[in-house]
Amino acid sequence: MKKYSEMTVAEMKSELELLKAEYQKLQGENLSLNMARGRPSEEQLCIAEDILSDKSYVAENGFDCRNYGIVDGIPEAKRMFAQILEVPSENVFVGGNSSLSLMYDCVIWSVLFGNINSEKPWKDCGKVKFLCPVPGYDRHFAICEELGIEMINVPLGEEGPDMDRVERLVAEDESIKGIWCVPKYSNPTGITYSDETVKRFAALKPAAKDFRIFWDNAYCVHDLDVENPDKLLNLYTECEKNGTLDMCYIFSSTSKISFAGGGVSCVAASKGNIAEIKKRMTIKTIGYDKLAQLHHARYFKDLAAVKDTMDRHSKYMKVRFDAVLDTLEKELSGYGIAKWTNPRGGYFISFDTIPHCAKRVVALCKDAGVVLTGAGATFPYGKDENDSNIRIAPSCPTPEELLLAAKLFSLCVKIASLEKMIG
Amino acid sequence: MKKYSEMTVAEMKSELELLKAEYQKLQGENLSLNMARGRPSEEQLCIAEDILSDKSYVAENGFDCRNYGIVDGIPEAKRMFAQILEVPSENVFVGGNSSLSLMYDCVIWSVLFGNINSEKPWKDCGKVKFLCPVPGYDRHFAICEELGIEMINVPLGEEGPDMDRVERLVAEDESIKGIWCVPKYSNPTGITYSDETVKRFAALKPAAKDFRIFWDNAYCVHDLDVENPDKLLNLYTECEKNGTLDMCYIFSSTSKISFAGGGVSCVAASKGNIAEIKKRMTIKTIGYDKLAQLHHARYFKDLAAVKDTMDRHSKYMKVRFDAVLDTLEKELSGYGIAKWTNPRGGYFISFDTIPHCAKRVVALCKDAGVVLTGAGATFPYGKDENDSNIRIAPSCPTPEELLLAAKLFSLCVKIASLEKMIG
Repeated sequence: MKKYSEMTVAEMKSELELLKAEYQKLQGENLSLNMARGRPSEEQLCIAEDILSDKSYVAENGFDCRNYGIVDGIPEAKRMFAQILEVPSENVFVGGNSSLSLMYDCVIWSVLFGNINSEKPWKDCGKVKFLCPVPGYDRHFAICEELGIEMINVPLGEEGPDMDRVERLVAEDESIKGIWCVPKYSNPTGITYSDETVKRFAALKPAAKDFRIFWDNAYCVHDLDVENPDKLLNLYTECEKNGTLDMCYIFSSTSKISFAGGGVSCVAASKGNIAEIKKRMTIKTIGYDKLAQLHHARYFKDLAAVKDTMDRHSKYMKVRFDAVLDTLEKELSGYGIAKWTNPRGGYFISFDTIPHCAKRVVALCKDAGVVLTGAGATFPYGKDENDSNIRIAPSCPTPEELLLAAKLFSLCVKIASLEKMIG
Repeated sequence: MKKYSEMTVAEMKSELELLKAEYQKLQGENLSLNMARGRPSEEQLCIAEDILSDKSYVAENGFDCRNYGIVDGIPEAKRMFAQILEVPSENVFVGGNSSLSLMYDCVIWSVLFGNINSEKPWKDCGKVKFLCPVPGYDRHFAICEELGIEMINVPLGEEGPDMDRVERLVAEDESIKGIWCVPKYSNPTGITYSDETVKRFAALKPAAKDFRIFWDNAYCVHDLDVENPDKLLNLYTECEKNGTLDMCYIFSSTSKISFAGGGVSCVAASKGNIAEIKKRMTIKTIGYDKLAQLHHARYFKDLAAVKDTMDRHSKYMKVRFDAVLDTLEKELSGYGIAKWTNPRGGYFISFDTIPHCAKRVVALCKDAGVVLTGAGATFPYGKDENDSNIRIAPSCPTPEELLLAAKLFSLCVKIASLEKMIG
């Protein structure tokens, strides 16, 4: 095997011909596979199926969950998330199926009304900016884009965002009001923020008094190596030590623990933030679905129950990650045309082509029946200046399908790379 | 029996002494009853209990409801609401537990972004106003108050809002962007809008091109007299005839059909509005709880199933309304100090004292252990200039409790009236 960069143009052309023939053959197989979104597989959706058998409706405080009331969540649901996130129960607000919508609400309310540390609503602050570690999660970026909040890229490394840059930017620019973080098994690179990174987050001194860290702990218990999981330092505790607890909103959900289509979500925050969220939420709803909260809290009655469930998830996930990673290794290593992450949890593999090839790879895959997340999606405004990052979501197809999809994907990477290098 | 207004002051004082003694006696009974909110009773919450036994998760289109996707609702849930509201399925967006939160979203989005007929977001329009038929629903008013939307009272009569006034105001003032309506079994007066009122709504010619009717059809199938229910003309059809379909958002939910703490909700609207709602919602969530949608749609598989459920609700409701209405009739008629509604559906009785007595009645009741909706709550900003309207919610206590509560209430009305008349 030879690095492509060491080939002559003639060698590259000849190699490209062979690969294209192989591509055409695979195209003929009419594949229809999807590695675009982090959807749990059918097997995973069956793990917590007993939740669906629970007909109970009385919460531990005697409240009939079938009726109106309790806007901030029933006690046992608060405790469930409190245990998962290692925060006090009384600092947890429990919502409905979507943690994204809780994040959305927190941003929207800040725009319309300001948060508890705001002098005025963000809509009256002129330009408002958020820091966005990249590559990152497209749905975070979409909220900012919808609201006209300017996004500033910050590189995400092995230990988290470039904290020198984060510290400098938030200290010098009071129009920077927030930052999006997926601190454990980051979407899409899979890294977990180091202890130092978390400590530096808790010690931030933003010029904007109403700055907020949107800490989307979506993969808090979503380990692949269950015996030796990544450990994320607790931002809540660190902020408490620093007297900066108002600065963070911590989100999580059971979407990838029980059911992505019928789970429960939460936000954990300071006493003042939670009071504010409850106050705003009371205008919007009489309450979230408390039956879902109850059935989840009874099923995940302690951390052992959560761990048991996540162990089962990890088995289904590991075989899928392995199918893709083994194929990438086999098909692409040594050519000098790609690098990718080898995550220890979460839902994604982050893949980088040589510059200006990602869009072409995604298009080639699509034309052969394999759908990937759009190239650029991992960057604000969909703009990956290098056009090199691709998010691979291996959770949903079967391992057999993934072998095929990853093989096709590798082929497309080779083709796109050679096309680019030949020019 | 003598009208109080025909009594001498000495007679009134003597009567007041007797009533106060009776009040003190009842105070000693340490009542703890609540007629404040429209909560279903325990019996009602058991009617649709089979929904909780449904473990199915595959929608009729083959979609696994446990997984991510389908932001606008599964087909059978759309059809369920389409049948209830008599609108096309494709014009229905199905949400989560709370229709209030769908209303809130529609207002918030108009403020932040404008709706599909807006030239600019409402936040950039200077003063924005809503018409509020009074007495009305406090949670509607709270949304406007939260957002600084100025509320203009419009009297609600037997046939609906004063349409002469509504037509004139919306035609002459382009800052009027919306109106709140509970068109069937209105909260709190229980009236149903007449056909003419609905036709005039559909034919409105507002100066504001982005004016919206917020048609909260919360009690669409919530009849007390199931053999002879009120019939509400279909606003959707009337607007269609007039080419004004963009002008209305129609809301409903199963909160008082299945479970107030775990139901599903919807908004029905024009194709353009639904597309806009779906677009905005996609930024906010990957999807509502589709398991709840599926279990509801399977249980309420046709209108006959809905009607059967509502017939059962009506039995529990009717005995409660009767307990209160019979008591009011027995205790208060003939004194010339009160009038109240005799609703044919919905959840409330609207009660009017003589001027400037409502707060006193509510306070007297509270001090004797009976909680009512706060006086003034049925008006924007909580300001009932006459201080005379009280909303009675008889759904939750038992009939026996209601007899007692209504008797105490009547006593308090007499006391407050005499105090006022004696001066």
